[in-house]
Amino acid sequence: MKPKSQQSTFHEQSERAKGDASFSDRFGEETNFASRGRRQPFLLAAAEIQDDFWSDYIRLVREVVVPYQWEVLNDRVPGAAPSGAIRNYRIAAGDEEGEFYGMVFQDSDVAKWLEAVGYLLGTAPDSELERAADEVIDIVARAQQPDGYLNTYFTVKEPAGRWTNLAECHELYCAGHLIEAAVAYYNATGKNRLLDVVCRYADYIGTVFGTEPGKLQGYDGHQEIELALVKLYHATGEERYLKLSQYFLDQRGAQPHFYEKELQQRGGTVHFPEISVTRDYAYSQAHLPVREQAAAEGHAVRVVYMCAGMADVAAETSDAKLLEACAKLWRNIVSKRMYITGGIGSMAHGESFTLDYDLPGDTAYAETCASIGLIFFARRMLRLEPKSEYADVLERALYNTVLSGMSQDGKRFFYVNPLEVYPHAHGKNRLYDHVMPERQGWFGCACCPPNIARLLASLGQYIYGTQDRTLYTHLYIGSRLKWQLDDQHVLIEQNSRYTQEGTVSFRVVPESPVSFRLALRIPDWCGEAACLVNGIPLELDELVEDGYAVINRLWEAGDTVDLTFSMPVLRMKGHPHIRQTAGKTAIQRGPFVYCLEEADNGPDLHQIVLPEGSRLEASPEAQPAGGIPHITGQALRRGGDEWNGALYRSGVSGQSKPVEVTFIPYYTWANRGAGEMAVWIRD
Amino acid sequence: MKPKSQQSTFHEQSERAKGDASFSDRFGEETNFASRGRRQPFLLAAAEIQDDFWSDYIRLVREVVVPYQWEVLNDRVPGAAPSGAIRNYRIAAGDEEGEFYGMVFQDSDVAKWLEAVGYLLGTAPDSELERAADEVIDIVARAQQPDGYLNTYFTVKEPAGRWTNLAECHELYCAGHLIEAAVAYYNATGKNRLLDVVCRYADYIGTVFGTEPGKLQGYDGHQEIELALVKLYHATGEERYLKLSQYFLDQRGAQPHFYEKELQQRGGTVHFPEISVTRDYAYSQAHLPVREQAAAEGHAVRVVYMCAGMADVAAETSDAKLLEACAKLWRNIVSKRMYITGGIGSMAHGESFTLDYDLPGDTAYAETCASIGLIFFARRMLRLEPKSEYADVLERALYNTVLSGMSQDGKRFFYVNPLEVYPHAHGKNRLYDHVMPERQGWFGCACCPPNIARLLASLGQYIYGTQDRTLYTHLYIGSRLKWQLDDQHVLIEQNSRYTQEGTVSFRVVPESPVSFRLALRIPDWCGEAACLVNGIPLELDELVEDGYAVINRLWEAGDTVDLTFSMPVLRMKGHPHIRQTAGKTAIQRGPFVYCLEEADNGPDLHQIVLPEGSRLEASPEAQPAGGIPHITGQALRRGGDEWNGALYRSGVSGQSKPVEVTFIPYYTWANRGAGEMAVWIRD
Repeated sequence: MKPKSQQSTFHEQSERAKGDASFSDRFGEETNFASRGRRQPFLLAAAEIQDDFWSDYIRLVREVVVPYQWEVLNDRVPGAAPSGAIRNYRIAAGDEEGEFYGMVFQDSDVAKWLEAVGYLLGTAPDSELERAADEVIDIVARAQQPDGYLNTYFTVKEPAGRWTNLAECHELYCAGHLIEAAVAYYNATGKNRLLDVVCRYADYIGTVFGTEPGKLQGYDGHQEIELALVKLYHATGEERYLKLSQYFLDQRGAQPHFYEKELQQRGGTVHFPEISVTRDYAYSQAHLPVREQAAAEGHAVRVVYMCAGMADVAAETSDAKLLEACAKLWRNIVSKRMYITGGIGSMAHGESFTLDYDLPGDTAYAETCASIGLIFFARRMLRLEPKSEYADVLERALYNTVLSGMSQDGKRFFYVNPLEVYPHAHGKNRLYDHVMPERQGWFGCACCPPNIARLLASLGQYIYGTQDRTLYTHLYIGSRLKWQLDDQHVLIEQNSRYTQEGTVSFRVVPESPVSFRLALRIPDWCGEAACLVNGIPLELDELVEDGYAVINRLWEAGDTVDLTFSMPVLRMKGHPHIRQTAGKTAIQRGPFVYCLEEADNGPDLHQIVLPEGSRLEASPEAQPAGGIPHITGQALRRGGDEWNGALYRSGVSGQSKPVEVTFIPYYTWANRGAGEMAVWIRD
Repeated sequence: MKPKSQQSTFHEQSERAKGDASFSDRFGEETNFASRGRRQPFLLAAAEIQDDFWSDYIRLVREVVVPYQWEVLNDRVPGAAPSGAIRNYRIAAGDEEGEFYGMVFQDSDVAKWLEAVGYLLGTAPDSELERAADEVIDIVARAQQPDGYLNTYFTVKEPAGRWTNLAECHELYCAGHLIEAAVAYYNATGKNRLLDVVCRYADYIGTVFGTEPGKLQGYDGHQEIELALVKLYHATGEERYLKLSQYFLDQRGAQPHFYEKELQQRGGTVHFPEISVTRDYAYSQAHLPVREQAAAEGHAVRVVYMCAGMADVAAETSDAKLLEACAKLWRNIVSKRMYITGGIGSMAHGESFTLDYDLPGDTAYAETCASIGLIFFARRMLRLEPKSEYADVLERALYNTVLSGMSQDGKRFFYVNPLEVYPHAHGKNRLYDHVMPERQGWFGCACCPPNIARLLASLGQYIYGTQDRTLYTHLYIGSRLKWQLDDQHVLIEQNSRYTQEGTVSFRVVPESPVSFRLALRIPDWCGEAACLVNGIPLELDELVEDGYAVINRLWEAGDTVDLTFSMPVLRMKGHPHIRQTAGKTAIQRGPFVYCLEEADNGPDLHQIVLPEGSRLEASPEAQPAGGIPHITGQALRRGGDEWNGALYRSGVSGQSKPVEVTFIPYYTWANRGAGEMAVWIRD
């Protein structure tokens, strides 16, 4: 249980929130909006987060990340890579003269920022932020062309080039992000200016693309619009958006190949000559129809964004083949192509998947955005079938790669999340050109920072899921949920010391006694779980369905549930087919994967060996921000042999001396300057 | 001792050789030619090879490699990458109309082939080969321009571009190879047509380059001419060639930088846009004056070709600073930047060195040519100071990387020599784009195959070295040397089972009794050495100087020396600073590094563990070509755990089952189709 002082803070905040008229209206609104669309088979409700671990992050997003990104988007951060993103819109709107600046998908940075703002405004009012967003929305709206088209690259730089290079130029991708922003902003504020803009844009897109004669039989190189259109369908109830999403999925990979057709039509020009996007169809998952894809190939972010859209459409249309493809791709990723940190994408070239069990740690790509996309995919699979495996992976990606993507001050970001770093090799061995040993202030291709912001700002939507009379708890995050069941609101208060100690308690407050099933995820890392209802122990084993302990009872106001998950220090091994983890161990405790850093353990981390059975224990006295303990233990360090300038020798004793080692949570690495880091340690 | 039958074959061949008038004249001629130039501080004499292991290779070079390459150079091998090299000369000579084909350094393929032919003709007559070579020389001579210039790329394709892009365009590199060819051919045949051509070319080059006003203060991007000019100096006795070589070395890295000057003068155009040669001075070792270079940086072949030239010039000029730089670069390479196979160049990007102790096995470059260049460098260091370390490295590179570079039928070649291959990853993980799991017939950039040919064809020059009254035996290869000492020839017959069993015997036959020092290298891999002179044991320990056992006596006709080097199976470890070999063992026996192949040991070689002290033994019954035994032993293979689709698990027992493993000599890998291979095995 939380100490009394924190509880009162919690209640004070809830009261404040209640005092704000618009807040209580918005609370749980996803449920309301959904009812305007087709019935969703499985709904996620939004919870207000108040958590020892997460509240700091969400505050960081609100107070640092989003304001900082606002400055970046406006090119007001000295030293950071220029953005030009807002200025591009100004130019397109006719407010300013100038040339387009940045990547062909620069618009999406503004959209992701707006989406994050939407989620923030959905959980607490912020008039200044809302004013800034409204100003941007005004510019965006005025940048829309008379026919509904809205993309600053093509409007400003290549007006004649619209829809001539779907394979490379991200037009529909940018449209998708703008749609997501519009839906989030509308859900949060009830303001429909941007929603109207994107509806007009989507309607225009619907006149351009389709199987009908005279339309383009195309689809985007970078999936995104598919999942966005389903959100637009949910927000508006207009089935044509769902159908348009379905069209984009159905068309992908069709023969004769659209990318080849458009390539020839535009005379063979390419936008990114360094990667052969237009001919390497697997790069864009356009090598096969989506229902025939069984392995994750190509650009990792695209794969998981596509899968998220597929799962959405499968849920809405009950398309069994589509669902089956989702399940196959999921299985391939999580059982053969995912880092222990929940990172995906083993290769910098094409930011891509490679092959089964190929998971190099030092040359990993493991893009932050790809793990965010994996979370999107997992969340949608949870809606389709509430199995704890999806939430386990979601949690793994969230607590490790996504959090690793941002510095603890919210100002610096990783695009690539390696599992091993030897900084001396950087700049010298060009295999590591894509890997930064320290987080950067901003990127020329700045997809990841705003993606983290929008995910963390909407984290309250990932905690629970509902299906009929079952409330699933996917994530254990201190929070407050107002769940509409029958004709009343059921308040679910979750207090969590999950990340620190593996304990969680719930207080259930229905307006009147009501029966429903409370399904509690048993995390994959947990050896033993215990559960008390109103202080009385339950036999959990008998209650577990698909990884969730289901408590079915008549709930009365003030009922409590107390969960305890044992949280031992785990020695994790990789599958025997993984070459790069053979003979190595990774440390995990709770949802956190750990790593060694040079700052704690000195240089030459590869010399450290973790003998089987050696002492390893959580060090509660050494707790960094967030209260996650370090893990200390006994290891061996090879050395002491006299080499006399030899590079190779026989008859080396391999003598090792005992050393004390300190593991820190992977997500906290690289916050103390550049140094060596390793997740997998020899055993 | 060799069996009688083989001895008689040996004598028969010697008699045949003697019967050929030109042969006996040529024998030992390097000594003769050298006397025409400045006195060399340390000379290597040429021996005629007759060896159980090597004779097959040299026959292969003569009967397969050189004839095959002749066909390739003439574009007569269906399926092989086109060469165009001879045709380029024909076009430049006006024999044919057409366009230049191939790399900017395509000419050097012809030169290296001619050089190899020279060495072959130096050891045995071959009228057909000599006729072919004379024909090519005729074409080459006629391709020479009136002013002496001779380069088909610039003559045919860019006549106005001569000497405008030294950094990238290999003009002086090609000149250097032609000079080497001319010297070898002249030494072998006494024919001076090509020698005259290259003297005229070198004289012309001397009018173009130099510190004098009006001359270009330039030097080649790819070193080669430096060592070639010293050979030309030796062949002709003309000191101006030595001085020109010295000029190129002295000028390298001077400020203001010549590459920048010529880049600006030609308007900023570049020949190889994919690598920034013109600005990355270290790529061409032009970042510092050569005497200030202390670490091997940039393109590996260039480094060692440069070092060879530096050592040559240092030897001729007694330039202590230059010698010191040679020693520093040598030390850096062999104690920090060399694979256990004698391969160098850790990175595909720029075919380059990276940083100290960075020696990845699977992404290694370890170009065959780079190890050949390391052998050139080692040989010259041996001339400067006869320390066994140089010969140890020479032997390591020769018996492992160089031999690995060619298939056992002499028809297929490796450019890149990795220490670990997982063929399934090729084409999927683009880190391995440069690595071929099987040897190729020819290459678009075909530097390596003719380089192997010219090295093996001249191998007889690497066995011995002389200094005053000492005869150094650097390599143990069955052979026959006629050494001119005082006024007589001393015949040194070496019979060798060195590669197979570590035994060597010598028969010394002076015309009359003569005293000299016979210095016998004690190999670095040898635990115990024994030596008998005329059957009487010597106390070797007392005789060893710089790694050579020196026997100083009055030699009489028929004196014998018998050497036995113990040849245990060695478990080699990498220096503790090497990240990639931590926790791993490589197997070596004699000069041979071994590896595991999938063909013998099944897939997933990374699952194999070699426990300390496990049985490992040479298997004389399993002897492939060359009689080098396989090594068999007891190992463990991880597996058997039930993973149920999990990718990561805790509580894995790490259970292993005993397996019998078979190691084969590294140089024989990839002769049985594509499969996994690994040199470093977990222990």
